[in-house]
Amino acid sequence: MWWQQPVKSLNASAQQAALARQVELTKPPGSLGQLEHLVVRLAAMQGQSQPKMDKAWVSVFAADHGLAQAGVSAFPQSVTAQMVHNFVNGGAAISVLAAWHQADFEVVDVGVNAEFKPLPGLVMNKIAPGTANSLLTAAMSAAQCEKALEVGKQAAERAHGSGAHAFIGGEMGIGNTASASLIAAAMMRTDVAPLVGVGTGLDEAGLAHKISVLQQVWQRHQFVLSHGEPLAVLRAVGGFEIAALCGAYIRCAQLGLPVLIDGVITSAAALIAKAIQPGAQDWWLFSHLSAEPAHRQILQALDAQPMLQLDMRLGEASGAAIAWPLLQQACVLHQGMATFSEAAISQVSDKPREGETG
Amino acid sequence: MWWQQPVKSLNASAQQAALARQVELTKPPGSLGQLEHLVVRLAAMQGQSQPKMDKAWVSVFAADHGLAQAGVSAFPQSVTAQMVHNFVNGGAAISVLAAWHQADFEVVDVGVNAEFKPLPGLVMNKIAPGTANSLLTAAMSAAQCEKALEVGKQAAERAHGSGAHAFIGGEMGIGNTASASLIAAAMMRTDVAPLVGVGTGLDEAGLAHKISVLQQVWQRHQFVLSHGEPLAVLRAVGGFEIAALCGAYIRCAQLGLPVLIDGVITSAAALIAKAIQPGAQDWWLFSHLSAEPAHRQILQALDAQPMLQLDMRLGEASGAAIAWPLLQQACVLHQGMATFSEAAISQVSDKPREGETG
Repeated sequence: MWWQQPVKSLNASAQQAALARQVELTKPPGSLGQLEHLVVRLAAMQGQSQPKMDKAWVSVFAADHGLAQAGVSAFPQSVTAQMVHNFVNGGAAISVLAAWHQADFEVVDVGVNAEFKPLPGLVMNKIAPGTANSLLTAAMSAAQCEKALEVGKQAAERAHGSGAHAFIGGEMGIGNTASASLIAAAMMRTDVAPLVGVGTGLDEAGLAHKISVLQQVWQRHQFVLSHGEPLAVLRAVGGFEIAALCGAYIRCAQLGLPVLIDGVITSAAALIAKAIQPGAQDWWLFSHLSAEPAHRQILQALDAQPMLQLDMRLGEASGAAIAWPLLQQACVLHQGMATFSEAAISQVSDKPREGETG
Repeated sequence: MWWQQPVKSLNASAQQAALARQVELTKPPGSLGQLEHLVVRLAAMQGQSQPKMDKAWVSVFAADHGLAQAGVSAFPQSVTAQMVHNFVNGGAAISVLAAWHQADFEVVDVGVNAEFKPLPGLVMNKIAPGTANSLLTAAMSAAQCEKALEVGKQAAERAHGSGAHAFIGGEMGIGNTASASLIAAAMMRTDVAPLVGVGTGLDEAGLAHKISVLQQVWQRHQFVLSHGEPLAVLRAVGGFEIAALCGAYIRCAQLGLPVLIDGVITSAAALIAKAIQPGAQDWWLFSHLSAEPAHRQILQALDAQPMLQLDMRLGEASGAAIAWPLLQQACVLHQGMATFSEAAISQVSDKPREGETG
């Protein structure tokens, strides 16, 4: 299958060249902290000692969840379709941010429970009007899962073909923090209850109900979930948008396109993608730590360091978009700063302190 | 004295209007985390329910320290003047970032130990060619301290007059983490040794030497430092650039201009400014947590929440400049997002979960 093909290798010589340049720039070595590590990684990805982050590509995958019928969200399922309109009309958070960053922005209907007319910025890749209810059956068939991975692959290829410097994936799907928690529990071989959060804003009773529902889903799919085979887990609990993200993340790594990962749903997709293709993570950067409780543990399981911690929990790729200027600034500094020799600046002194303090 | 005049009051009705708008925007309430708090605070500062952060003003204050003769830095004192040239020539980190953000950018010589010819972007406000060595005497006289506060006041007034939406202050001065640690210890009434860090990159022996020097300075000025009267502390240990920052931060609060504070040196200036004018902090936002050890404690003493934690320790206002897009994005989201009614999106459901989970 295409997702088993190897990922692109990082460029070690570009990485070394970037590291060497960092030491020459007019600042104490290491004083730009994580921005230095970031630009060195980007150099290794782009194969250039002075990487560029001028243009981002944003694909938001939208799909509905059969499990939403069990009342696991504070919002009704109809909001998924309403938000698709809001995305393309420019009123959603990610729409505003993508426009402000002059990023390429598309919304991909991979399985929303509504019929859309063709709209500018909407990619129509609907697999089904939502996944099946995982309380009763697998969320998707093997064929549907493959199709959803393929939808993500195609988005990654559009981004790569456009010349974008980074791929940002987002998601919209009422009920999808439920899928993310189940995926995280399965892939991290842990209990699901502590990984369940309030999502879009459940109250205490709503959270208790959500935990109870997810425990029922776990029992229904216990064999598959406790075994942790990534595609089987994905099929069991969904959703289409998570599968598409998973396909996109793997394809970006194959094409050599840096990925900026968003919050808890996208990180759950990354868990699946990493289990399929362990080397793919070389191409992923993690934008922020979400307020959703599972996220901290997922990032730990991925040994990933998020750049921001702003208590965001919106999804849609909004956290990744907020972090995008960090990548840009890391590159702009690396490219634009003078070296010590260019600026004729003295480097670390020969420690004349003993003779001078007296 | 001018710094005792009251600061501008925040606008409570604009704050309430911004808070009300946040609840109407098409996202789960609270899901933009700290960005929501940020834009509500900016609304209170600007007196507008939809605040703007289009234009930043950056003033970097440069000055030398007599204490640098005691070998408290990894770099020789001549680097302060060399970096002034690097700032105006566009090669320093803050120059690159200010240009990228299209911010107004100036370097203010408030006491560098070098003569400069007039240069574009250089404001010539030299008080003396560096402070006196605080091992031997007070770093500055009362008259010099007043002049330095006035230099910062004038920078704040230039920023305000330019129509900038935020003031970002930075500093350059070999040896100034030493002053910052002494100020922090005095204002927080604590021992200086745990507040001393490697600054621009001392080795272990260099750090031990720096601690020993600062303990000697402490003994020399024990009465003043343990008493904690803010201007007396400033006069005792300097420096001119810290006094200028202090003056700028107070004046911004009087004028009603939001301030984005940088790292450990600027936060030490904020400690002094707050002791002079406790209400001034209403106008300050804290950009990042520096890797310099004193910074965490200074921020705690100020009860301040930094936006970023990227292990930066460069100064120059670089951390504030990196955080600037967070302010911009918070405002752009607040202004550009659709409301639930504009987008015809259902709000939190009436929790039909009991009937539907069956």
